[in-house]
Order: sequence, then C-alpha cells, then structure tokens
Amino acid sequence: MTAPVFTERTDEEAVETGKALMPKFDRDGLIVAIAADVATGEVLMVAHMNQEALARTIATGEAWFWSRSREKLWRKGEESGNTLSVAELRVDCDQDAILLKVAVAGDGVACHQGYRSCFYRSVPLGASPSPATELAFDRAMKRIAPSK
Amino acid sequence: MTAPVFTERTDEEAVETGKALMPKFDRDGLIVAIAADVATGEVLMVAHMNQEALARTIATGEAWFWSRSREKLWRKGEESGNTLSVAELRVDCDQDAILLKVAVAGDGVACHQGYRSCFYRSVPLGASPSPATELAFDRAMKRIAPSK
Repeated sequence: MTAPVFTERTDEEAVETGKALMPKFDRDGLIVAIAADVATGEVLMVAHMNQEALARTIATGEAWFWSRSREKLWRKGEESGNTLSVAELRVDCDQDAILLKVAVAGDGVACHQGYRSCFYRSVPLGASPSPATELAFDRAMKRIAPSK
Repeated sequence: MTAPVFTERTDEEAVETGKALMPKFDRDGLIVAIAADVATGEVLMVAHMNQEALARTIATGEAWFWSRSREKLWRKGEESGNTLSVAELRVDCDQDAILLKVAVAGDGVACHQGYRSCFYRSVPLGASPSPATELAFDRAMKRIAPSK
C-alpha cells in the first residue's frame, strides 16, 4: 500500500456526525468487523481488519480480514470457498467498528466449525455464571462440514 | 465479585465444541459484545464487557458493559432509559465474542447519537478508500434524540 488511505481522525463531532471515513484502529492496528447475513440479518462472525484488509474489502466488495493467529492478511473463504460477498459496509458512530452485510458463497457456512454462524451456542440467563453453567447448542443450526 | 465465575480455558476442542463457558478476555480484560435486535436481527451496537459486566448480564438479563472511555461498569441505558433487555446471549466458536439479542427499552434508540443503531452510515464500495470517500447516511433511520 502507498499513501494513507483513510482520513486522519479529528474531533468527535466530525467522527460521529460527518461524512468522512475516519476508522479507529487499536494499538495493534486493528478494527473489529462483524459480518451479518444481508438477507436475514443474522450475525455470522466477528473478525478483525487492519488498514489493508479494510481498504481491500471496500475496493473489491469481498471480505478481507487480518488473522491474528496466523498473522497474515486473509481473504475469507480463500480455502473453504465460503467467501463473503459484501453488499453493504457500515461504520458505527465512533468509527471503531465495521459492519458487513454479506452473502456467503459456497455451502453457506461462515464458521470453520461448519455452522452457518459462529454463534451456535447460547448461555442460560437468570443465574450467575459458574463452572456448572452449560452452553446450549442451537439445534436449528445444522452442522455441515467443519473446515479450517 | 468473589471466586472466578468462568471456567478456565483449556484446549481448542473444548472451547469450540464443548458446553463449558470459557470466555476469552483480552489483555485489557475485555471481550467484544454485539447487541442485535431480537425481533429484526439488526445489529445495534458494539461494546466491551469485562468479567463482571458479562457475569451481571448473564445473571440479570440486562446488558452491562465496561466503558473504556469512562473506565467504569455501565448498565446500558442507566441514564437515557434505553436499557437493553437480553432475550438471548450467545458466544462464538472460539469464545472471544458475545452476541446479545435484545429488546431496547425507552424510545428504542440504542445509539447515543439518537439512531436506533450505531451503524447509521455506509461506505461506498467498489473504489479504494481515499480522503474523498463520502459516507452515506441511512435515510430510513430516523434520528430521535441524541443523548449521552
């Protein structure tokens, strides 16, 4: 990448009510990005982008992330075929989070565990969490093929 | 808070396919939490929880967060009245993100800028971002009353 591609952040007013894209990257140079299904609204996954991943996603309309575990730029689905086609990309009020509205290619599985969403387990509410807390699997969410 | 309330994280297999709640807090002791409308699925906001915020949210069914700017525990809506009633709380595959499915109380505004969602602006796709990039406001999202 060459020159900086994002506008430098100024005051809160400009960041929150203006039209300039001024994303806030954290001290690791990352911004959190949520992918939600463009058709159903369902939240599918959460990942991180560095400047280049965000710029590539905006330019290409395909979701790119920064893999913290592998420390590399990562086009989602490059191995599994489950690429994310970005219909819309939004920023939140203080521009420290990105929302992607996507269509999942391939077999429609966004999670490497083989579920359409990474959020396939829920936590029971109404009691303090303890080692006895048991997650409940979403039975309506079919598991297809776990893949890395 | 007394004793640790969450199970210590073990191996990836247990974290991703088991029934034990083993949330991963980052080096600041925080985990990212996304609130989505339980009725429409719309992503409303992104915030952070520390151990206590997560434990309180699970125990009470009301959304608590950790405010990084104010450095304090924060019951969402305690000032604005726009509390978040949590219908469902999910964890993702590697348990480093939380998804809340919520109903927003009060005037239904989740964002302090007065919009029902913090994601009221989109980024045009198909060209590399530059200082000339202009965010588009979602005209269908009415602004009610900006409040802190």
